Amino acid sequence: MSEADGTGDGATVVYELGSGCTVSDVEEGARYHATVNGVVDYGVFVDIAAEVSGLVHTSNLVGDYEVGEDLVVELTTVHEDGDLGFEEVRTADYETRTVGRGNRLTMADLEDTVDEAGHIEGRVVQAKQTGGPTIFQVRDETGITPCAAFEEAGVRAYPEAGVGDVVRVAGTVETRNGSPQVEVDDLDVLAGAAATDVEDRLDAATANLAAPADIDPLVDWPALGKLYDDLREVARLLRETVLEGRPIRMRHHADGDGLCASAPLQHALERFIADTHADPDAPRHLLKRLPSKAPYYEMEDVTRDLNFALEDRTRHGQKLPLLLMLDNGSTEEDTPAYRNLAHYDIPVAVVDHHHPDPGAVEGLVENHVNPYLHDEDYAVTTGMLCVELARMIAPDITEDVRHVPAVAGLADRSEGEGMADYLSLAREAGYDESHLQDIGEALDYATFWLRYNDGRELIYDILDVNCDDTDRHAELVDLLAERAQQDVDAQLGVAMEHVTHETLDNGAHLYRVDVEEHARRFTYPAPGKTTGKVHDRKVAETGDPVITIGFGPDFAVLRSDGVRLDIPEMVAELKTEVDGGGVSGGGHLVVGSIKFVKGMRAAVIEALVGKMGEAELDEELGSSAAVADD
Amino acid sequence: MSEADGTGDGATVVYELGSGCTVSDVEEGARYHATVNGVVDYGVFVDIAAEVSGLVHTSNLVGDYEVGEDLVVELTTVHEDGDLGFEEVRTADYETRTVGRGNRLTMADLEDTVDEAGHIEGRVVQAKQTGGPTIFQVRDETGITPCAAFEEAGVRAYPEAGVGDVVRVAGTVETRNGSPQVEVDDLDVLAGAAATDVEDRLDAATANLAAPADIDPLVDWPALGKLYDDLREVARLLRETVLEGRPIRMRHHADGDGLCASAPLQHALERFIADTHADPDAPRHLLKRLPSKAPYYEMEDVTRDLNFALEDRTRHGQKLPLLLMLDNGSTEEDTPAYRNLAHYDIPVAVVDHHHPDPGAVEGLVENHVNPYLHDEDYAVTTGMLCVELARMIAPDITEDVRHVPAVAGLADRSEGEGMADYLSLAREAGYDESHLQDIGEALDYATFWLRYNDGRELIYDILDVNCDDTDRHAELVDLLAERAQQDVDAQLGVAMEHVTHETLDNGAHLYRVDVEEHARRFTYPAPGKTTGKVHDRKVAETGDPVITIGFGPDFAVLRSDGVRLDIPEMVAELKTEVDGGGVSGGGHLVVGSIKFVKGMRAAVIEALVGKMGEAELDEELGSSAAVADD
Amino acid sequence: MSEADGTGDGATVVYELGSGCTVSDVEEGARYHATVNGVVDYGVFVDIAAEVSGLVHTSNLVGDYEVGEDLVVELTTVHEDGDLGFEEVRTADYETRTVGRGNRLTMADLEDTVDEAGHIEGRVVQAKQTGGPTIFQVRDETGITPCAAFEEAGVRAYPEAGVGDVVRVAGTVETRNGSPQVEVDDLDVLAGAAATDVEDRLDAATANLAAPADIDPLVDWPALGKLYDDLREVARLLRETVLEGRPIRMRHHADGDGLCASAPLQHALERFIADTHADPDAPRHLLKRLPSKAPYYEMEDVTRDLNFALEDRTRHGQKLPLLLMLDNGSTEEDTPAYRNLAHYDIPVAVVDHHHPDPGAVEGLVENHVNPYLHDEDYAVTTGMLCVELARMIAPDITEDVRHVPAVAGLADRSEGEGMADYLSLAREAGYDESHLQDIGEALDYATFWLRYNDGRELIYDILDVNCDDTDRHAELVDLLAERAQQDVDAQLGVAMEHVTHETLDNGAHLYRVDVEEHARRFTYPAPGKTTGKVHDRKVAETGDPVITIGFGPDFAVLRSDGVRLDIPEMVAELKTEVDGGGVSGGGHLVVGSIKFVKGMRAAVIEALVGKMGEAELDEELGSSAAVADD
Repeated sequence: MSEADGTGDGATVVYELGSGCTVSDVEEGARYHATVNGVVDYGVFVDIAAEVSGLVHTSNLVGDYEVGEDLVVELTTVHEDGDLGFEEVRTADYETRTVGRGNRLTMADLEDTVDEAGHIEGRVVQAKQTGGPTIFQVRDETGITPCAAFEEAGVRAYPEAGVGDVVRVAGTVETRNGSPQVEVDDLDVLAGAAATDVEDRLDAATANLAAPADIDPLVDWPALGKLYDDLREVARLLRETVLEGRPIRMRHHADGDGLCASAPLQHALERFIADTHADPDAPRHLLKRLPSKAPYYEMEDVTRDLNFALEDRTRHGQKLPLLLMLDNGSTEEDTPAYRNLAHYDIPVAVVDHHHPDPGAVEGLVENHVNPYLHDEDYAVTTGMLCVELARMIAPDITEDVRHVPAVAGLADRSEGEGMADYLSLAREAGYDESHLQDIGEALDYATFWLRYNDGRELIYDILDVNCDDTDRHAELVDLLAERAQQDVDAQLGVAMEHVTHETLDNGAHLYRVDVEEHARRFTYPAPGKTTGKVHDRKVAETGDPVITIGFGPDFAVLRSDGVRLDIPEMVAELKTEVDGGGVSGGGHLVVGSIKFVKGMRAAVIEALVGKMGEAELDEELGSSAAVADD
Repeated sequence: MSEADGTGDGATVVYELGSGCTVSDVEEGARYHATVNGVVDYGVFVDIAAEVSGLVHTSNLVGDYEVGEDLVVELTTVHEDGDLGFEEVRTADYETRTVGRGNRLTMADLEDTVDEAGHIEGRVVQAKQTGGPTIFQVRDETGITPCAAFEEAGVRAYPEAGVGDVVRVAGTVETRNGSPQVEVDDLDVLAGAAATDVEDRLDAATANLAAPADIDPLVDWPALGKLYDDLREVARLLRETVLEGRPIRMRHHADGDGLCASAPLQHALERFIADTHADPDAPRHLLKRLPSKAPYYEMEDVTRDLNFALEDRTRHGQKLPLLLMLDNGSTEEDTPAYRNLAHYDIPVAVVDHHHPDPGAVEGLVENHVNPYLHDEDYAVTTGMLCVELARMIAPDITEDVRHVPAVAGLADRSEGEGMADYLSLAREAGYDESHLQDIGEALDYATFWLRYNDGRELIYDILDVNCDDTDRHAELVDLLAERAQQDVDAQLGVAMEHVTHETLDNGAHLYRVDVEEHARRFTYPAPGKTTGKVHDRKVAETGDPVITIGFGPDFAVLRSDGVRLDIPEMVAELKTEVDGGGVSGGGHLVVGSIKFVKGMRAAVIEALVGKMGEAELDEELGSSAAVADD
Repeated sequence: MSEADGTGDGATVVYELGSGCTVSDVEEGARYHATVNGVVDYGVFVDIAAEVSGLVHTSNLVGDYEVGEDLVVELTTVHEDGDLGFEEVRTADYETRTVGRGNRLTMADLEDTVDEAGHIEGRVVQAKQTGGPTIFQVRDETGITPCAAFEEAGVRAYPEAGVGDVVRVAGTVETRNGSPQVEVDDLDVLAGAAATDVEDRLDAATANLAAPADIDPLVDWPALGKLYDDLREVARLLRETVLEGRPIRMRHHADGDGLCASAPLQHALERFIADTHADPDAPRHLLKRLPSKAPYYEMEDVTRDLNFALEDRTRHGQKLPLLLMLDNGSTEEDTPAYRNLAHYDIPVAVVDHHHPDPGAVEGLVENHVNPYLHDEDYAVTTGMLCVELARMIAPDITEDVRHVPAVAGLADRSEGEGMADYLSLAREAGYDESHLQDIGEALDYATFWLRYNDGRELIYDILDVNCDDTDRHAELVDLLAERAQQDVDAQLGVAMEHVTHETLDNGAHLYRVDVEEHARRFTYPAPGKTTGKVHDRKVAETGDPVITIGFGPDFAVLRSDGVRLDIPEMVAELKTEVDGGGVSGGGHLVVGSIKFVKGMRAAVIEALVGKMGEAELDEELGSSAAVADD
């Protein structure tokens, strides 16, 4: 025992390690308070923390100790295999310094450990600089919690720690606006084994928490069953995305099926986010639903999405988002947008039932769920798929969404085998077929007037998903469906007067209507729907093979029944056959649209009508009439 | 006296009631600290709180007491008439529990009672969940104050208490960002008599505070006087709405009269909200002024309004708003929108001077103020009405708005009897007629470029309402009126060259101008105003009966002087007479517009001109020229 | 010494002045603790604060004192020249009151003086009323700091102190969200000498801090050198603007050169704001970059700008902004907008290289930098000018922007002498000419799809300014330039089929294309660019004097090579020659556009073509082809 043990620059420091410390907290040459946990012939084993132990060899011991006795030791050796070697030190003139970290706390513990010191280990998922401290959102295996580190007002603390890094944060648990928050004393970016440990825990937790709920499909329908594994993969991806604190931008076709797909999924994701994030604003900050104007992912939309994503990263330190395309996104036309995103960390997933261009989007997207990839067709609507997806994310919403696939099927005129079961399921839940039809019309009508605003609350009310008042739902749908019908009647009252008729060489009836000259503009129903309604009336009147063309100055909308058209192929031919026509377009086989330059309308339409007259008639009348008007 | 009085589950509890407690706080079988306040033959009267007293009958007394002495009693009986009966209890082994509520505090007291405990009683007008506590905005008879209740971070406290419920909140008055706020210890939803008491107080206060200011009209004009009682009802409704913490959405016609109506009312309401709400952001959160594109309440606007209202309810726990329609809203065309709102708790009030469709909106709106309902006409403009309304809400703004009715009257070409008085009133305040005209033009010009942004500050400056710099007002109006005039001159420099002339069978001059082909587009003045200016010049040139039609591809704007047109009737006839014309429209008798499908323009206009040629001429030239261009 | 010295209303008060107090803190008749700092024959000199001293004449002294001894004095006289006269006072019954202000603190000190009392002196640059205190942003010679004054919840404290006033704020330094903030005990508006002192310090600091960085131009080019002094003045103005806490709204031409001008300047200003403001959100709140739709400052834009500025003043107590026009703003067409701003405190500065209308904007703007004012031309592009300007504001960004002038020059087809040096500078930095061209195309393409959103992050990435990943920059530019080229090819594939040819009287080739009828609408490239690309192909094909007209219903875009056109003069002639044509427009000499009313298209274009046939041919082919398509 030596009184002279103090160094020139003050008393010796002896560290008291918090019980949560690990080997990564110790350093050769430093001194520690230790407790004997075992006595052997060649020395004593000591603990300097719950999980940090080592040997003091007899040759390095000053006194005799029994288990439980305390002493001060110096760490002399860290062996290759991680074993520690100590030497006893006797000194009166020392200062005990507590290593600023106690037990490792998990996010789940925090509410019960307010005012306690401790440390957490996890991955940084957001790093936002405020006017005061830097706020790190750190994710461990149990949740995501804010950690406030203060360097200097408005100055980035721990600039070495960025989004994605694995860190150990020592600090004190405090309450901020009622939520637990860690006030940071120290923050280390972990590397090597220490980081791997944490990552392993996170991965295990993610694997566990990201696993889709183990549910059965609402109906027993083989065509749907074929896609179930693909849906599970998307469910896992979405759950992982939420767990990692990455935002989701959901882009969907702004029609009935698109809403039946996106609204239940929005409901499920909002719930899952709320369950896994402390911040009650997280559902709003991490999920956006955006109706798309075009039937594909336009350059304008992707530019806007990318711009918002980059701004959120800069302003809020958020991760770049995942893009989820619903009822949309399977074609060649979507690929420029996807390529644009490819330079940024923005993964893409697609759930669609439109005919995909073969191989077009593969390699550009993480997941692509589409019935055509399994030899099925549009009859399995995106709404049907996404209701299952939503249930895999939040199974307890099943009761609230079981009528939705029937709405989706009616809206997109699905005649798949599953429809009967979906309709009975809806009927059991109190929705008869006419009301389901009305919901579809009401969605269409409201969406038209919302003009690409998402209309969150209104859409939930109309669809009766996440709606707290079924009477209001019913009255609202009645009103909107009635208004929609009145507006359709008014529009057709005008347009039907101007429909022209001719008989094609193949015997099909061709009806033409100029929807720019002979329909009201900028009101409901828009040209596409107007054409569809004219067509439906003509089919009902004539009962024969019917084609309807609704044209404007630089576009035409096409509908046919009982004629074997292949619109994508006709468009491809017209592109090369009509010089300077500027032709583009497509759609389904028998329902689609075509664009051209104004000055070439006559040439394009006459060429198109020529091709229509050569098409074979379909004997099985009506079967080709499915799929709603875009 | 019994030592064995404790029950099996611990010591007896004796309650110490806060002095603010009432009968609703006591319970049969419970024990209370009491003080003798009277001695009678048959026992003693005791107080257990300032307002809670009762009898301990001699048979139930253990000792002898004088006034002022303390004892412990048990409540044995609550008589039908509310009288209380007690029994003395002697026990040494008890625990005193203070009932967590002191004096009842009113909102008006709170600033003087910081750090004091107490309770407040009132109605919940907003319940917002934050990341920490739930914030209830509670209204009592003196004001509205936030009460913060903490259950768990981000978890809704007292979920049984929603907007509209009557509650008693016990807690401590604290200061949050300098404003008083109650930190909630306990919150009870009241029912029965206790709730009725509070409601009675609130109703009395509302009746008192909601009473319109007792003012006289700015001018003595019988036509205006007839509507005064109706205006009082709207003033009361608006004041009540503010007192209840319900937001107001004000939709108004985006023209001179519409701004003369809405801006003074906005000023008055902002002031009244500031006076009755602690939160200085309340005027901004509770009042929105929204210029409407169309002359009626479009489906697009109502869809947007409803959507925002629902979002504000979800995100901020706000009540759904009241909708106030100004210079708009009296016709059949408005009813689909009103019906849409009817499914939600969104009351509607209308102040308008456009010709109402008989009975169209009654039953759908709370109030409908319109001169036509009192055999008066558009000469009583909405601006004139709303200046009175604004004064009923904030009478001290009178000085600031007394020139506004004259602006409104000139803008809408009112030739009512009151105009002379309004003009002298304005003249006395320093506004000569030419400056008032310029204000109208400047409003029109600025509104055009604001493109349906409300332009709060700019409109206040132009109108010289709530404007702190009269010189700036004057210079700004001069500049804008001059620019407007230059743009009109430029437009007419083009358009007048292309005006065609013909003489109708009835001798009236008909001028036609194609405002799509022969006027600059997307600039000021727009087609309607361009037509009006062409018409004015032609009337000045010819001085004879004149009709002017400004037409575009699918619309025509109509103006006439000296001809007895009935535009609404002509439109009604054309609807049925021109098959497939898609005719709609209307307006005033001699000023209006008509829409049709592009392909039927020639047919519609020729039929219209035919009708015009059959109209009677007006001998009293000019009197029908009133009302501005929409 | 008198025991009876206490007044009727309590003990005498003796003030203890904080060492930072000045003469403005003392008052005749008040008593102070003093310390002797000098002994003379006729009395003693005493300090009552570090900078407040005076004489106690022998006749007014009670005792004998040596230097350093304390006594209590009463201020009896303040002489004209500011000297103070005291009288000794002996009293036992007094109360010491500390004057609530200690040393004068500067903003730069505040972080080291937390919890200390003191005072600061400066000018109010923002005064924002919150729900609690009033927050004054006060600027002294070292920075800008918030001072919170609480009067009553939501009530404006010190209403006499407004933006622009010089104030002394006494209070305590506290930390709010980690940033220093002064909690105000007292706030005085200074006047007279005290104010002048502060203003002098601020002015000296401003003069010092606002001085542009002393840099040399990137290239040695006399044409650029001529404008250097003008640029310094703008740099000084912008630095002053930032130092004064005034926001900046930057409006710029939405094309390649406009972005090369505005993005580097945005980067420099963001950096300078961050360096001079404590609030880390200041760069976002004080700077907005706004791409302009039109080639001049439209009434719609100025109305919107003014409206936002007024709202920010009302809601956030901000100063009105400075407007900075870039690559835009030199013509007669801009003046109505400037006149509109002139009624408000909104200074304007212009940096442009478009041909200015002589004297049009002088007198309306603070600064106007334009090569034409120095007998130079558009070859000195706005991007080149603004890169120098940016370096004068934040010289350390030089490395990051030295390739930008080359991009600007290529985008605007500058053939100035300096281009060779700019290109080598870029080459040295790793950007070859083809990549610089691609950057220009990518900027153009992205801007088109951003549709007047500023796209801050995306533009930085494309331009490789303030971009942290050069690889991403390169890949992004490749992709966007390739997409742009594909879209141009697709557009020309249509349009070239419909181009008509004729030979004018002067032998020039005239090509016409109807870009409404024979080009795809609402997609990239827009009509102007489409016309330019058609023209370039025709020039490449024919190699002769070529004029191209791309026309729509009410406009035409003009391009010429090898013909001496003067488009502004032709437009001026057409205005008077074509009655009712509604002609307007302009641009550069040989590149421009013209607008007219739809119904007069044929007349206007034929008159225009007539003039073109009379123009002289240019022998030096190609030299007039410069300047990009607007």
